Amino acid sequence: MLQKAISKQVSVRLKNEIEYRGKMSSVDPYMNVILVDAEEQENGAKKANYGKVVIRGNNVLYIKIEDKL
Amino acid sequence: MLQKAISKQVSVRLKNEIEYRGKMSSVDPYMNVILVDAEEQENGAKKANYGKVVIRGNNVLYIKIEDKL
Amino acid sequence: MLQKAISKQVSVRLKNEIEYRGKMSSVDPYMNVILVDAEEQENGAKKANYGKVVIRGNNVLYIKIEDKL
Amino acid sequence: MLQKAISKQVSVRLKNEIEYRGKMSSVDPYMNVILVDAEEQENGAKKANYGKVVIRGNNVLYIKIEDKL
Amino acid sequence: MLQKAISKQVSVRLKNEIEYRGKMSSVDPYMNVILVDAEEQENGAKKANYGKVVIRGNNVLYIKIEDKL
Amino acid sequence: MLQKAISKQVSVRLKNEIEYRGKMSSVDPYMNVILVDAEEQENGAKKANYGKVVIRGNNVLYIKIEDKL
Amino acid sequence: MLQKAISKQVSVRLKNEIEYRGKMSSVDPYMNVILVDAEEQENGAKKANYGKVVIRGNNVLYIKIEDKL
Repeated sequence: MLQKAISKQVSVRLKNEIEYRGKMSSVDPYMNVILVDAEEQENGAKKANYGKVVIRGNNVLYIKIEDKL
Repeated sequence: MLQKAISKQVSVRLKNEIEYRGKMSSVDPYMNVILVDAEEQENGAKKANYGKVVIRGNNVLYIKIEDKL
Repeated sequence: MLQKAISKQVSVRLKNEIEYRGKMSSVDPYMNVILVDAEEQENGAKKANYGKVVIRGNNVLYIKIEDKL
Repeated sequence: MLQKAISKQVSVRLKNEIEYRGKMSSVDPYMNVILVDAEEQENGAKKANYGKVVIRGNNVLYIKIEDKL
Repeated sequence: MLQKAISKQVSVRLKNEIEYRGKMSSVDPYMNVILVDAEEQENGAKKANYGKVVIRGNNVLYIKIEDKL
Repeated sequence: MLQKAISKQVSVRLKNEIEYRGKMSSVDPYMNVILVDAEEQENGAKKANYGKVVIRGNNVLYIKIEDKL
Repeated sequence: MLQKAISKQVSVRLKNEIEYRGKMSSVDPYMNVILVDAEEQENGAKKANYGKVVIRGNNVLYIKIEDKL
């Protein structure tokens, strides 16, 4: 199902409580995720912008899919 | 047995003490779980709603099945 | 040996110090355990009832078998 | 060598500092251990008795073999 | 996609909150990364220079790609 | 190289800062180690003697080889 | 690339913040490392000398290569 969310907006919450939102351009079965036009949020506040970021799957708590599939 | 719980209501408790309740639309042997119409609860209080969330199995403490199977 | 304990009463202690007691309806080599008619205990006091709960094996500290085999 | 210690008295120390002593009735390469007539000790004081307990290997710090082999 | 970022400038954020910036001369599927002309940063301040450093992938939180691909 | 150190004196430092010194009678690729005539040390002070102890490799920080090989 | 660094001077930083410097006589894909003529450093101060030490790879944060390759 994650494959169907490719190129959709997602929020990736990590174990350290930080959240990354952006367009998911790639995801694999370990939940390694590539986000483009991403931003980092902590407690709902934007902390930084990321053009392109590759998140290592073992840090992921969950991926929330924001767009309709 | 988890396969029999597909499309039932479940509560997924994570190691960080937070609980997600919703309809389980998918689960695999690593306990990667997809919930739809989910809500996040902490100490029994609702904290947020999630249309669709993919929880990474290595964070799962247990899955409680609420519906009769 | 765990297979012989199927349908017996067991206590499953997790790494987070919480204990689940119930009838073990299933267990696999990773110690993923399904308990039915389970209760959660902390420091010997009952905290909650669980009709059916699937515990992820990597959280398990030990399984104590209470019934005679 | 652990196989030679089967049915001997051992002490199993876990990462959480608690120690279990008993007769080792089974052990596998992951150091999953079954103890019978076991007792739990913390700082050298007995805390509880266990007829039969299955300890998950990933929690084990070491196994001390008390009997001569 | 990480392969396309070889010889580009990247920032590698580790789980311990420290960040390493440099030219990525190699990366493998575990996100083991080799950086050359690297520097260590904490809270945005440079702490040390590294000619060549091999970062073990299991410590990586994310890799941010700074150059255009 | 660890195989060449068999029957030599070694110190095994664990992640919990405790050190075990003794004759290494066995070691495998996961650094599961068997020590005989071992002693436990913390901050350089002897805390206990162990006739025979099997240390689980995933706890090992390093093995220092004290004898010449 | 780590193979090319064999017999060079390296610094191995562990997750517990301690650093070991010495000649790398061996390294494998898990970053298990053997150092000879090694010393332990904490915050840049020498704490101990090690003739020969085998560091378990899962503790490694990074390996810095000090010699030119």
